[in-house]
Amino acid sequence: MGIPARDENYSEWYNELVLKADLADHSSVRGCMVIKPHGYAVWELMQRGLDDMFKETGHSNAYFPLLIPKSFLSKEAEHVEGFAKECAVVTHYRLKNDPGGNGVVVDPEAKLEEELIIRPTSETTIWNTYKSWIQSYRDLPILINQWANVMRWELRTRLFLRTAEFLWQEGHTAHATPEEAREEAMTILNIYRTFAEDFMAMSVLIGSKSEGEKFAGAVQTLTIEALTQDRRAIQAGTSHYLGQNFAKAFDVQFQSKEGKLEYVYATSWGVSTRLIGTLIMVHSDDKGFFPPPRLAPVQVVIIPMGRDDEARLKTITAAEALAKDLKNHQFKDVNLRVHVDKREKESPGYKYNYWEMHGASLRIELGPRELEAGKVIIARRDTGEKIDLPLDESLPPKILELLEDIQTHLFVQSVAFQNANTRRIDTWEEFEEAFSGESAPGYVVAHWDGTKETEEKISELTKATIRCIPLVPLEPGDELPGKCIFTGKPSAQRVVFAKAY
Amino acid sequence: MGIPARDENYSEWYNELVLKADLADHSSVRGCMVIKPHGYAVWELMQRGLDDMFKETGHSNAYFPLLIPKSFLSKEAEHVEGFAKECAVVTHYRLKNDPGGNGVVVDPEAKLEEELIIRPTSETTIWNTYKSWIQSYRDLPILINQWANVMRWELRTRLFLRTAEFLWQEGHTAHATPEEAREEAMTILNIYRTFAEDFMAMSVLIGSKSEGEKFAGAVQTLTIEALTQDRRAIQAGTSHYLGQNFAKAFDVQFQSKEGKLEYVYATSWGVSTRLIGTLIMVHSDDKGFFPPPRLAPVQVVIIPMGRDDEARLKTITAAEALAKDLKNHQFKDVNLRVHVDKREKESPGYKYNYWEMHGASLRIELGPRELEAGKVIIARRDTGEKIDLPLDESLPPKILELLEDIQTHLFVQSVAFQNANTRRIDTWEEFEEAFSGESAPGYVVAHWDGTKETEEKISELTKATIRCIPLVPLEPGDELPGKCIFTGKPSAQRVVFAKAY
Repeated sequence: MGIPARDENYSEWYNELVLKADLADHSSVRGCMVIKPHGYAVWELMQRGLDDMFKETGHSNAYFPLLIPKSFLSKEAEHVEGFAKECAVVTHYRLKNDPGGNGVVVDPEAKLEEELIIRPTSETTIWNTYKSWIQSYRDLPILINQWANVMRWELRTRLFLRTAEFLWQEGHTAHATPEEAREEAMTILNIYRTFAEDFMAMSVLIGSKSEGEKFAGAVQTLTIEALTQDRRAIQAGTSHYLGQNFAKAFDVQFQSKEGKLEYVYATSWGVSTRLIGTLIMVHSDDKGFFPPPRLAPVQVVIIPMGRDDEARLKTITAAEALAKDLKNHQFKDVNLRVHVDKREKESPGYKYNYWEMHGASLRIELGPRELEAGKVIIARRDTGEKIDLPLDESLPPKILELLEDIQTHLFVQSVAFQNANTRRIDTWEEFEEAFSGESAPGYVVAHWDGTKETEEKISELTKATIRCIPLVPLEPGDELPGKCIFTGKPSAQRVVFAKAY
Repeated sequence: MGIPARDENYSEWYNELVLKADLADHSSVRGCMVIKPHGYAVWELMQRGLDDMFKETGHSNAYFPLLIPKSFLSKEAEHVEGFAKECAVVTHYRLKNDPGGNGVVVDPEAKLEEELIIRPTSETTIWNTYKSWIQSYRDLPILINQWANVMRWELRTRLFLRTAEFLWQEGHTAHATPEEAREEAMTILNIYRTFAEDFMAMSVLIGSKSEGEKFAGAVQTLTIEALTQDRRAIQAGTSHYLGQNFAKAFDVQFQSKEGKLEYVYATSWGVSTRLIGTLIMVHSDDKGFFPPPRLAPVQVVIIPMGRDDEARLKTITAAEALAKDLKNHQFKDVNLRVHVDKREKESPGYKYNYWEMHGASLRIELGPRELEAGKVIIARRDTGEKIDLPLDESLPPKILELLEDIQTHLFVQSVAFQNANTRRIDTWEEFEEAFSGESAPGYVVAHWDGTKETEEKISELTKATIRCIPLVPLEPGDELPGKCIFTGKPSAQRVVFAKAY
């Protein structure tokens, strides 16, 4: 059941962990994954947390078609360059029995007049729809989100991090003014940051993408970036201010309060099942999957023990009573997720390993000796520390406290890791040195002259990309002007470089 | 804002209602719909209700790929006959710029070796996956559900009732014995019935499908059937016992407790966004959409009134305080869904019609006169009855009572409608007479000789199909043998005929 250590082979550690913790599996369609129940449970917890925040800020969910007419894709010039190329194309709508008797074949007579594309993202189809929904300023704003599957024909795929099909949410809003749309993009960025910090216990940088890295069709892309344990950046969520680009491409105008006809202002924003990959990269360890308690499918696992049936019956009964009690308690406004592992053929040691691999935040060991002494042994998933606690009404609050402690501990650790792996560099020599070799240096905060050419050159030479232009300085002074690390030309402020997933 | 009356044109009434109540919209892809926020909110409430029941009975959610290799479809012989033909086929994975400069074209070099099908249902891809998950009886049962989009290239489509793409849940379970699998299919049928009755306030028949109507690849299909206001049957949910058909097609064997290698037993089951169409067909009226309170996106709408700004400020303040208070109360364990309609340009009369069209269960009118008198006027969506109630702490419990009353009233009405439109017929003359003409007679409970030939003949002559073979007699005596209405041959029991959607 073991997996490689992170130090040995980080990449294999990740791949093996995803399989061994039963989070996802490969499928028979190239690049597409099966999300297993344990992994999907994490996604459901993420969905619930995000969806609540979207709704609190006035958004509603809706659903738009999976298929997009090919011609829609070329309406927004930049968008088609960025997206249209690698995608699944539907050309026919019927199969027929193979005249040769070999199963089924595509019916050549059922060819579509216009090919349809499986959505890689839905801006085009949604703005084509908004056209008929928006006439006047009174129809605005439209604040819609959709939970859906999308498909991008990626060449090199990796479970959760980059798959051809993935699940996500995509918000698409329409506004009467650029100010309101920009504020919306920022509201969402803050939701993403809050979610990253409070649910994922993960420190993130927030900032703006450079021209070279922004979304195809956006005026501005805002991003949250996390740092993996092998010190690479990972883009965890983006929120785009689209200006009037899509409104113009799909001719969506509205009558303003002043009676003028104007193009609508837009945003779009999304996070995906990639967050699960990010979570693993940030928090798991050599023992396996370790989500923070708020996102753990099982927060407390109880392991009843006993050498014979009689002893086991007693500890199982006590374990189930405890589980029932705990399930009525709430951690962060949600009932505790508790599981009693009653499997007969497996040893306690096997179960300890199993639940470390599967990421239970706390393990409660309940043997005949503990039961007799009226206590339990609790093991923490983070420190491995074991503590004895009385099996009475003082236990549930103590468990909530331990969960809170683990949640906080993980976040503090993430912040410390980010700080320890962020440095300021001011000479090209040092910069090149930092990014040399196979490993990655974390975040390098340096000056840049603001041009696409320089960004590309730096990336070619070092594989470092600009992860974001911070909205607030990471450290006082980062916001001051300086000289570009590569060209020596004037730089408005420091930006964040890293090798990225 | 009006829609045709049901009596005038039932079909147009339905179509217009879906659009005017902002439930769904047509899209630019033939047969695919946009589910608007108001309609999607109903779907979310349905999802939550069903998902809770699935989880309570031990099921977990997971996610399987959208695309299915073409060859999978022909592995189960009956399944391919029933499903594979009308479906969206992906043949290419890349577009490129049109050399002629006209947008994008399919890149002929990016042709897939094997075509992929957008899932019309997922039995094949899931059983291909289960093959690698199941070795021993200890891996069983597998109780998995998925919430997903599916696609069937329907020729004649209708919003919610029959669309090319639709949303659904599909459960796929694997068991060691036929008894356990059959019990699972029955557990789910009961969940569907409970959901229909308790959430949708809708009376349903439960029974088994005939050979001619069962799912392609099933041994037995169980169904819930509802009756629309134009007295047609509508299949609202199905639960299939698949025997070993898919296990054999995908070679999924397990080692039994006794050490024998056996094929796994399976079920699959699903309900879809068709339930929203069913709900409209069963409960809405000439005023518009009327979901039962448990499925109403807005249960209570508060309309503050006032001739001038000062008066309006007062009633709006009172309305918002009331809304805040009500939202802390629960109807059926869920917080009340309350909306204050503060729109300035719309008249109270317009708002009354608007919320009748959009299906708010209760309307609270709050004008300066009511406010001064310390009361509100409440109008029920079902009876239209208006009552005065004091605006004090007695109001919330009274509102919960009214909602309960409407929920119950709708169900009682549905049961009465079903009873009033169910009859027993024993001669072919009467049977033909009942099904003659354009309209439909409701349920006709009659004897049938049990053969596919007779079923087909009857359907050809009258357009009546067998909706189900009841599991329990609708009336005492239905379970007794008799003579087939058409052939006069022996019949084991009465079955239910109807014209169907």
